[in-house]
Amino acid sequence: MYEVNIPAVVAEVQAQCERYERALTHNLVDELDALFWPNPNTIRYGAAENLYGYAAIAAFRAQRPSQGLMRTVTKHVVTTYGYDMATSHLEFVKDGQTRVGRQTQTWLRLAQGWQVVSAHVSWMD
Amino acid sequence: MYEVNIPAVVAEVQAQCERYERALTHNLVDELDALFWPNPNTIRYGAAENLYGYAAIAAFRAQRPSQGLMRTVTKHVVTTYGYDMATSHLEFVKDGQTRVGRQTQTWLRLAQGWQVVSAHVSWMD
Repeated sequence: MYEVNIPAVVAEVQAQCERYERALTHNLVDELDALFWPNPNTIRYGAAENLYGYAAIAAFRAQRPSQGLMRTVTKHVVTTYGYDMATSHLEFVKDGQTRVGRQTQTWLRLAQGWQVVSAHVSWMD
Repeated sequence: MYEVNIPAVVAEVQAQCERYERALTHNLVDELDALFWPNPNTIRYGAAENLYGYAAIAAFRAQRPSQGLMRTVTKHVVTTYGYDMATSHLEFVKDGQTRVGRQTQTWLRLAQGWQVVSAHVSWMD
């Protein structure tokens, strides 16, 4: 059905994930906003908040603390399905902490390029 | 690019999500296994475990306790993209607990029908 992990597609999504990681750890809010699908259907479950719709996500970005964002990615797996869809699975440890964080994203190639339509961030129990 | 939330497609995925919810709360392991893509690329982050590949997920299902599985779904949003791809976002409370659980899944229409290729379950912090 889908060709899985076409190398050129994986490379494209990897590049967007790296762009997202840099924007997240440096609190580049415009960049973070640009990488999420600007639509009421976009959903992001954060470690401590459940955000439904792009407006709620952007409002959260705008007010979140800009300190304590650095983290080390300990594992990252991108999987692509055909040319236009991908998932990203990432494990991380925040600087100064020990608990394991997880971030999953579903990416689609949309009018403005690759964007996240669904995201979930959590601490492992 | 994608037609979002075509009613017939949403209904199909909703039905599979309900099938999954019933299998999960009744510990129907064969049914749970059948609803995940049998492939090394399938990933499931559980509340307390990070599982890479279908074999790891099936091994986890086979050994998990069969008690204490009942939960109440407090919110559920299915979003479909075209005819073959969907996300499911779900909030739940386990019987006898108060903390908020979240479950996200990415579903694809594959050779054996709709299956989960990526899942993430967590407790909100």
